[in-house]
Amino acid sequence: MLHVHPSRAADLREPDQLRTEPAVPVETYEDSFGNICARLVAQPGTLRLHNLTTIEDSGQPDPVMPDARQASVAELPAETLRYLMPSRYCEVDLLSNTAVELFGAAAPGWPRVQAICDWVHQKVTFGYHYARPTRTALDVYTERVGVCRDFQHLAVTFCRAMNIPARYVTGYLGDIGVAAAPSPMDFSAWFQVYLSGRWWTFDARHNKPRIGRVLMAVGRDATDVAITTSFGAAPLTIFNVITDEVRRD
Amino acid sequence: MLHVHPSRAADLREPDQLRTEPAVPVETYEDSFGNICARLVAQPGTLRLHNLTTIEDSGQPDPVMPDARQASVAELPAETLRYLMPSRYCEVDLLSNTAVELFGAAAPGWPRVQAICDWVHQKVTFGYHYARPTRTALDVYTERVGVCRDFQHLAVTFCRAMNIPARYVTGYLGDIGVAAAPSPMDFSAWFQVYLSGRWWTFDARHNKPRIGRVLMAVGRDATDVAITTSFGAAPLTIFNVITDEVRRD
Amino acid sequence: MLHVHPSRAADLREPDQLRTEPAVPVETYEDSFGNICARLVAQPGTLRLHNLTTIEDSGQPDPVMPDARQASVAELPAETLRYLMPSRYCEVDLLSNTAVELFGAAAPGWPRVQAICDWVHQKVTFGYHYARPTRTALDVYTERVGVCRDFQHLAVTFCRAMNIPARYVTGYLGDIGVAAAPSPMDFSAWFQVYLSGRWWTFDARHNKPRIGRVLMAVGRDATDVAITTSFGAAPLTIFNVITDEVRRD
Amino acid sequence: MLHVHPSRAADLREPDQLRTEPAVPVETYEDSFGNICARLVAQPGTLRLHNLTTIEDSGQPDPVMPDARQASVAELPAETLRYLMPSRYCEVDLLSNTAVELFGAAAPGWPRVQAICDWVHQKVTFGYHYARPTRTALDVYTERVGVCRDFQHLAVTFCRAMNIPARYVTGYLGDIGVAAAPSPMDFSAWFQVYLSGRWWTFDARHNKPRIGRVLMAVGRDATDVAITTSFGAAPLTIFNVITDEVRRD
Repeated sequence: MLHVHPSRAADLREPDQLRTEPAVPVETYEDSFGNICARLVAQPGTLRLHNLTTIEDSGQPDPVMPDARQASVAELPAETLRYLMPSRYCEVDLLSNTAVELFGAAAPGWPRVQAICDWVHQKVTFGYHYARPTRTALDVYTERVGVCRDFQHLAVTFCRAMNIPARYVTGYLGDIGVAAAPSPMDFSAWFQVYLSGRWWTFDARHNKPRIGRVLMAVGRDATDVAITTSFGAAPLTIFNVITDEVRRD
Repeated sequence: MLHVHPSRAADLREPDQLRTEPAVPVETYEDSFGNICARLVAQPGTLRLHNLTTIEDSGQPDPVMPDARQASVAELPAETLRYLMPSRYCEVDLLSNTAVELFGAAAPGWPRVQAICDWVHQKVTFGYHYARPTRTALDVYTERVGVCRDFQHLAVTFCRAMNIPARYVTGYLGDIGVAAAPSPMDFSAWFQVYLSGRWWTFDARHNKPRIGRVLMAVGRDATDVAITTSFGAAPLTIFNVITDEVRRD
Repeated sequence: MLHVHPSRAADLREPDQLRTEPAVPVETYEDSFGNICARLVAQPGTLRLHNLTTIEDSGQPDPVMPDARQASVAELPAETLRYLMPSRYCEVDLLSNTAVELFGAAAPGWPRVQAICDWVHQKVTFGYHYARPTRTALDVYTERVGVCRDFQHLAVTFCRAMNIPARYVTGYLGDIGVAAAPSPMDFSAWFQVYLSGRWWTFDARHNKPRIGRVLMAVGRDATDVAITTSFGAAPLTIFNVITDEVRRD
Repeated sequence: MLHVHPSRAADLREPDQLRTEPAVPVETYEDSFGNICARLVAQPGTLRLHNLTTIEDSGQPDPVMPDARQASVAELPAETLRYLMPSRYCEVDLLSNTAVELFGAAAPGWPRVQAICDWVHQKVTFGYHYARPTRTALDVYTERVGVCRDFQHLAVTFCRAMNIPARYVTGYLGDIGVAAAPSPMDFSAWFQVYLSGRWWTFDARHNKPRIGRVLMAVGRDATDVAITTSFGAAPLTIFNVITDEVRRD
């Protein structure tokens, strides 16, 4: 899933076509979440995947709308309902009582989501060496450590438990002019919640508005939006993400 | 999800419209798996949900095709790939080594799926009192007890781990003329695998061809195809499923 | 572990010798927790285990001492330290942050233990059909259902996480004159905490002082004090516990 | 638990007294497993713990006794029974079916333990970066990665499931003249099984006889024999283990 999400396609100034070395046929399809997926059969040996594009961005930080309203479940559009369900890394059923105990007193809607992000951000300790592919939201809750995906999984789970549709996303986070970019650069995970009739960006890892997020894929959790899913051994040799600001004259 | 699956709609001799007492508006929509979902807001008090229909069935048991072929992952249609992924109740990642150890020596395709069903059927003990909403495939593997959904979850997980697309389904299982119906009747869970370009029925609980399965919903696991998903307290008072054979003159 | 605990041996008015039908040799030994364990090799066929005794009891309910003091870890006797550690059913490490968040504001010592009992008693729903041999304290925390042992496991885990030595116990609970005995009678599980230099009785399941507890065995959790531990198939056919008050003239 | 185990005390050529800088009172006691435990209250600031001793060793590798016999449970001494039970990191109950399936065909006794070590050694990938304090035997079984303690936890669990008493141990592993010592040196974990009336050393991590093991502590699992157990924040600054061969003239 190395393409920009269709919702940002209009902002692309050049196509973000995936290229491979050696060249192999790449099939592109749209999955059930509306993401663009590229699919290929790699030959034995080293494979280089890369793409390069320019995208128009507002330069504005993530919008903040403290009075964004939480719909009752009855009002929610049908297509948002699957983002209330448990998934591989988000055991909504196992953490629903905890969610109500922790966030039941917060005002519904935006303040409740913000309370969830504040809690996760404050209680979980970040560290790259904590990365573990099997860690679920419940594991994050008990272990209180993780990388960015772990923060989002726990926050997503709490939101769903409070009947707020929440989806896990991956994308680019250029972050120019706001804070020092993490070094080395990486793709990033954040999440979206459905309030007042649209999806809003939240990020329990950074927990403050950022500039330059470019959405790549949305899903129930990291299972659905892995940057690469390999069938067969595919050890990662080098991994490089570069996002630069290109100002218009 | 009380409707017959669209793939069987042509067999319906009368519409299988969901009715409620007291009457409340029922909205119908198709989810991302292609299932027909009915949605309603229940008022406080007792709610009765019922539907009634007649469906044409071949009367033939589940087809058996021992030479149904397992496609390589590269050959699989894109829309089947999500049925290789882990999900809430199917931790494919955690059981993949076990699957290879247990079933790696079985011939690919139909014989491998059958080996999986045989193993699950033989190793897991059925009992209604073992029902537990939080039991995952890994729990079934370690506890070795369960109800029908548990059998299918473990089998689905093993199939996915062997790169065979597998989906969890619910439906009616009338079973006239083959074996004594379970008493009382219930909806049933089974699963489907993708071999030789189509989906085939398997059932790790019963592990033999049955007559009269009527598909209602397909999904990644029980999360996606719950008969009812309630937001708010909705204790079940009475539950009744009746399937009768109506012979054509 | 069908004998009365040595701490109550002086109260026995007759020996509580374990008898078997058919008669088989029974070896008795004391385990590392100070419990009396009986050990035997059963022949194939039905085995009846029974004992019968009379014990002197104060008739007083469990003592309540709201100013019982929580020692610092440095002050604790060495032999109590193992009751601070995690064990099979009590994942102290996984619930320590939750314990501090829930009970950190309660006054140390007795009030904190009482706060733990109140929480567990209120949040967990009792039901015999919820019995499950694999349920750990973390499972109780997430599922919020269980039988008496589950209530105690969660309370024990929270106490340990707050540096209060806590041990799981089993025994007779006659309960004459206080409340209707559960029907049918059973052995019961409760727990003890170490405050002000001694062990005190708490019971997160009933959460009120009871009369007539007779201690049988203490341990880290249910693993250590199972009434029977069988090696080989040993299905339980009938199980009967009778405790009657015998008043002195 | 920085002292040599009492079973090796006769081999000490100088006392292995624990010293602290700054000097604080150190209390020593024996725990229920027979280990020597030192206990102290550290003041805020840096604390250095060290000890230094010389111990006589046979220089012989771990004994191998392929005909060491597995006692029936009925024959086992009472004090070995607790090493058949589940514990925090060894969920014997959850892995007992798997153990029987994998090792039921191996000859009882030494060959069965060796089969267990071979399996764990072959299936689990070692890596220091896989270290995780919450990983249980079931996690090792599903994740197939770990550090030395994880290898032993899984092997111990499988042995117990096959009714072979098994205990987890920590100690020094000097290993001079047999294989390159790991760099930097560390304490090591291995395990012991009870066969033919005594405890034998096995090591699923290295899976071959080694020279110069010096036992420090035995227990049910890593919970019981942690080198240090701290109550309060105690970040480790530097950690150094040096074992040198001192030949007699």
